[in-house]
Amino acid sequence: METDLDPLRSVLEDEGHDGYLISDDDSDSDQRYVSGFTAPDAYQTLVTAAGEVHLLVSGLEYGRAQKEADADSVSRRAAYDYQELVAEHGSYEGTLRTIAAFLADHGVDSIAVPRNFPTGTADGLRELGLEVAVESEDVVEEIRSRKTPWETNQISATQSANEAAMAAAERLIATAEIEDGALVFDGEELTSARVKEEIEITLLRHGCGLDETIVACGADGADPHNRGSGTLEAGKPIVIDIFPRDKGTGYFGDMTRTFVRGEPTAEAKRRYEVTREAFETALETIEAGVTGAAVHDAVCDVIEDAGYETLRSDPSADIGFIHSTGHGVGLDLHEQPSLSPTGEELEPGHVVTVEPGLYDPEVGGIRIEDLVVVTEDGYENLTEYPVAFEPRAN
Amino acid sequence: METDLDPLRSVLEDEGHDGYLISDDDSDSDQRYVSGFTAPDAYQTLVTAAGEVHLLVSGLEYGRAQKEADADSVSRRAAYDYQELVAEHGSYEGTLRTIAAFLADHGVDSIAVPRNFPTGTADGLRELGLEVAVESEDVVEEIRSRKTPWETNQISATQSANEAAMAAAERLIATAEIEDGALVFDGEELTSARVKEEIEITLLRHGCGLDETIVACGADGADPHNRGSGTLEAGKPIVIDIFPRDKGTGYFGDMTRTFVRGEPTAEAKRRYEVTREAFETALETIEAGVTGAAVHDAVCDVIEDAGYETLRSDPSADIGFIHSTGHGVGLDLHEQPSLSPTGEELEPGHVVTVEPGLYDPEVGGIRIEDLVVVTEDGYENLTEYPVAFEPRAN
Repeated sequence: METDLDPLRSVLEDEGHDGYLISDDDSDSDQRYVSGFTAPDAYQTLVTAAGEVHLLVSGLEYGRAQKEADADSVSRRAAYDYQELVAEHGSYEGTLRTIAAFLADHGVDSIAVPRNFPTGTADGLRELGLEVAVESEDVVEEIRSRKTPWETNQISATQSANEAAMAAAERLIATAEIEDGALVFDGEELTSARVKEEIEITLLRHGCGLDETIVACGADGADPHNRGSGTLEAGKPIVIDIFPRDKGTGYFGDMTRTFVRGEPTAEAKRRYEVTREAFETALETIEAGVTGAAVHDAVCDVIEDAGYETLRSDPSADIGFIHSTGHGVGLDLHEQPSLSPTGEELEPGHVVTVEPGLYDPEVGGIRIEDLVVVTEDGYENLTEYPVAFEPRAN
Repeated sequence: METDLDPLRSVLEDEGHDGYLISDDDSDSDQRYVSGFTAPDAYQTLVTAAGEVHLLVSGLEYGRAQKEADADSVSRRAAYDYQELVAEHGSYEGTLRTIAAFLADHGVDSIAVPRNFPTGTADGLRELGLEVAVESEDVVEEIRSRKTPWETNQISATQSANEAAMAAAERLIATAEIEDGALVFDGEELTSARVKEEIEITLLRHGCGLDETIVACGADGADPHNRGSGTLEAGKPIVIDIFPRDKGTGYFGDMTRTFVRGEPTAEAKRRYEVTREAFETALETIEAGVTGAAVHDAVCDVIEDAGYETLRSDPSADIGFIHSTGHGVGLDLHEQPSLSPTGEELEPGHVVTVEPGLYDPEVGGIRIEDLVVVTEDGYENLTEYPVAFEPRAN
C-alpha cells in the first residue's frame, strides 16, 4: 500500500525533530500502518525527517520483516549489541540502549513520539540524552483516517463478510419457534450464545475474526456495550452488533441491526421509527466539509424532537440516546474521525459508522448502524444490508 | 478473583507515591487484572497507597462497570465535568483535566505509572502539576505472574480446548491421502488455511477465540513466526502452534506439535529427537528456585551438544534454536517469567511454556511446546496431549 507520510514529515520539520518513533506491537494500528509489518511483540519503527522508514526487530522477526515490511531498512537488535547490553544492564535498560544506538545510527538525536508511546521508554531515552516530545496532533491517526481506495475496498470486503454473518443471525431468529415467550430453534431455547456462535463461524469461513459480538435482548440491549446473554425472548428488541476484523488485512467492518420476533410494544415500534429517522437524517447530512459535530447534532435534533433525552440535552442521561453518532473505522474499530460533539470536518475517504440508538431498560435497546465512506458530495454506503425491525428468513 | 496488590502497595510506600494509575483499555492485561473490568476504550484505574481501587469510566460504561468491576468506587467522567472541560479545552486536554480532577478527588498528587503508560498523558499530567514517575519494576506484571489456583484452572481450561483443536488438526493430517507428494482431504488439497479453519471452529465451540494460528509446512515452519500458507506436503514437518484465548475469562493456552505425514528425512527425524530431548530436559529442570536462564541453558546444552547452533553459541544465528525456551502465559500470551538468558528465579504458580525448536529452511521447522505450572518441587503439566512426530487418526 502507498502510504502518504507527508503530513508527518511536515510535523517533524515544523517542530524541528529528526524523526518520529513508534515502539509497540502490531496491536497498535499506527505501528502496523507505518511499518507495513505485524508482530506480536514490540518493535520499533522510525520515520526520519527525510521520510525514510527504518525498523528495529528481534532476531525472531528479522527474516519475515525483511520480506514483509514496507521499510527502507530493517535492522535486528543484535546489530546494536542487544545481548551484550542486556547482559550488562538488564533487559529493560539494555533494550533502551539498543533503541538509542539504533536512533544514533540513523543520525537521530531528537524524536517526536505518539501520545501512547510508552512513558518508560520516553523517560529512559531522555535519561540517555535524547530529546523526546509528544506529537500531540495524532498525525498518523489523522493520515490513517483518509482511506486510500485500496483501504476502502478492504473495509468493504470485511463489511460483506459481516453481512453474511448478520444474515445467518437474522435467519436463526426469523425461523425460530415461539414457545412460552421464548425463541426456540431445533428444539432448544435460542440463546444469545447460540446466535453469536453462528455469527462467528460464518465470519471464520470468510477469513474474519472477532473478539466479541453483541446479541442483546431486552434490558441487556439497553446497556449499549452489554454483549448479551441468555435466552432470546419474543416481543423484545434484539440488538445485533457485529464488528469483525479481516485476519489478513486487519481492516474492520461494523454493523448493527435490531430485530423483534413476535409483536413489539407500541413504544418499541415508535423508538424504532425515531431511530431510523435519525439514522437517515445522519446519512443525508454527511458530505465532505460538514463537521462530525453537525451530523451528531442533526441526530440529536431528531431524537429530542421526538421527546427522548440525549447526552446533549442531559450530559448524565442513562436512558435515551447515550452515545455518539459514529466513529471512524479502519485498522482500528474506533478511530478518527468522530460523529460526536467534538467531531471535526469530514473529508473524502473518511470511513465512519452511523449508529444512532435509543435505550431504556423498560423497553430494550434499539440501534441501527451502517458503515459509509465520505465523498465530495455525500457518501457511499459500504453496507447493503436492509433495515427492518421484523426479521426475514432470507 | 482475589488479587494480591500488596507488592504494589509496598512499591508506592517505598517510593512515596500517593497512587498508581493505569490508563488503557482492556487489551492491557494489567488494566484488566487490577480493575476486574473490560472495555474497548481507555479508562482509568487508580490504586491508592491504602490499596483502594477506583475507576474512572465513560458514561457508556458506567452501568456495566458498577456491576462488574472489582473496585472500591466507580466514577463516570461526567462527575468531573468532562463535557465542559472538552468544550473548553478540546478532547485531549479536556480528558487530561478530567483525569487530574479524578486524582485530586482521591487526594492523589503524585503517581507511579506502568512503563507502557501513555507518554502523552504522563507529560500532560506533569504540566498540570502532578508528579508522575515510571514504576520500573513492572510490579503488576510480577503480581500477575504468580497465578492463583483459580487462574491456573482457567488456563488449564483454555489448554483443554486447545487440545481439542489440536486433535481436530492432527486428525485431518493423519487421515489425508497423499497424491503427488501433497496431502489431499475430501478430494481437495489439504491447505494450511483448511487446517486453521478446523482449529478455529473447534475453539469457537469451546468458547475460545484466537487472532491467528500457525500451521506451517517445510520452509514456512523454519521461520518461527511464519503462520504458514499453501498446500501441506508429505515428508515435510508441519508445525502447528495454537494459542487461543478464552473469551470469557481472557486466559490463554499455548501448545505446539510438529507432525510429518509420509516419510520424514533422516535429518528431520534426528532433529525431532534432539528437540524432544531438549523439551524433556527443560521439564526435568523446572522447579521453584531454579532460574529461567538455567532452564534455557539446559536446553541450549542439549541442542549444542547435538551439533546445532543456538542464539547462545551465535547471537546472530538464523538457523538452529533461534528463540528462547519459554514465556509466561496468563491474561497475556507472552508475559513474565521467561525461560531465556535473562530468566529470573521461578516461583510456585508461575505458568510457562516449554518450547524448544530447531529451524532450517532446508529441513523445515520442529517445535514441541507444553504449558506447565511451576510447583515447589517441580511442575504440573497443564497439557495432556501426546508428543509424536507421526500423526494419529485419534
